[in-house]
Amino acid sequence: MITRFPGLTSTRSRAVATDDLVFTVAVAPDPVPPSVYQQAVKMLARIDESLALCGTDKSSVLTATIYLADITQKAEFNRAWDEWVDPTNPPMRACIGVALEGQDLVEILVTAKLP
Amino acid sequence: MITRFPGLTSTRSRAVATDDLVFTVAVAPDPVPPSVYQQAVKMLARIDESLALCGTDKSSVLTATIYLADITQKAEFNRAWDEWVDPTNPPMRACIGVALEGQDLVEILVTAKLP
Amino acid sequence: MITRFPGLTSTRSRAVATDDLVFTVAVAPDPVPPSVYQQAVKMLARIDESLALCGTDKSSVLTATIYLADITQKAEFNRAWDEWVDPTNPPMRACIGVALEGQDLVEILVTAKLP
Repeated sequence: MITRFPGLTSTRSRAVATDDLVFTVAVAPDPVPPSVYQQAVKMLARIDESLALCGTDKSSVLTATIYLADITQKAEFNRAWDEWVDPTNPPMRACIGVALEGQDLVEILVTAKLP
Repeated sequence: MITRFPGLTSTRSRAVATDDLVFTVAVAPDPVPPSVYQQAVKMLARIDESLALCGTDKSSVLTATIYLADITQKAEFNRAWDEWVDPTNPPMRACIGVALEGQDLVEILVTAKLP
Repeated sequence: MITRFPGLTSTRSRAVATDDLVFTVAVAPDPVPPSVYQQAVKMLARIDESLALCGTDKSSVLTATIYLADITQKAEFNRAWDEWVDPTNPPMRACIGVALEGQDLVEILVTAKLP
């Protein structure tokens, strides 16, 4: 059984759930703020929404892969991350610098467990 | 139980399957075409082959992570993606710009569910 | 049931295990050697440690995603990989060039199966 939650276009999903795992992706929704920190806050709120849609929450996040348009801004992303994360349930995390499209300064892939 | 399908060299697999999940990777096989669109078409056909080897197909794809050598070519990749994807079962998708090797303009990582 | 193994800071884990899967990340630990090959050797030893903490080993690795600060150094990474990998159980593997922080020349994400 696979459950899919619609994304920005009809050819992708914002989240996909199996019986025990959730896979979700987010960037900051429009209107996109100009700073990495602000984009990260909005993006992580989006992840909270997607996890809730799937029936789980941040305490069950297994992994997070973060893509930054400018790796030198990692401390700014970390500030948003540290405010957001459940410190009693920290995910495995990787954070790398890549090329993103348009105004996106940060994008995140999250894997979580269903209860 | 883990099943492995041989890749280009003996130290990597083109696909690995557990009891319920498949993990597979592809670039365009030789001869590598010169455009992103053509490489994407051949690469996605390779993914179809790998999914079939594992006993599943594109309707069960959970996630796709796409690496583009030039993020400004994303629309060209999307053209191949939109032609390939099962629109009733869209995967979670991320598409980022990274450095690839040699003639590769695009590479993909796919996670799928076994029936 | 999720088991988490502490990472470098309190807001991330070096490894996270569910009932059947392990997700782990590594860079070369301090003191960081100057070459990609040496960093890869130390990083892969770190992965061995994390897999052991979780109750598995390299024979059960499903996937590896490798981030190189300089993709032209891929042959040097491959040398360490080929020495490390269990050739009877090769993982699915992707290796891309991205921007990493500080002295890191290579980083790896690994997914493994629990016995």
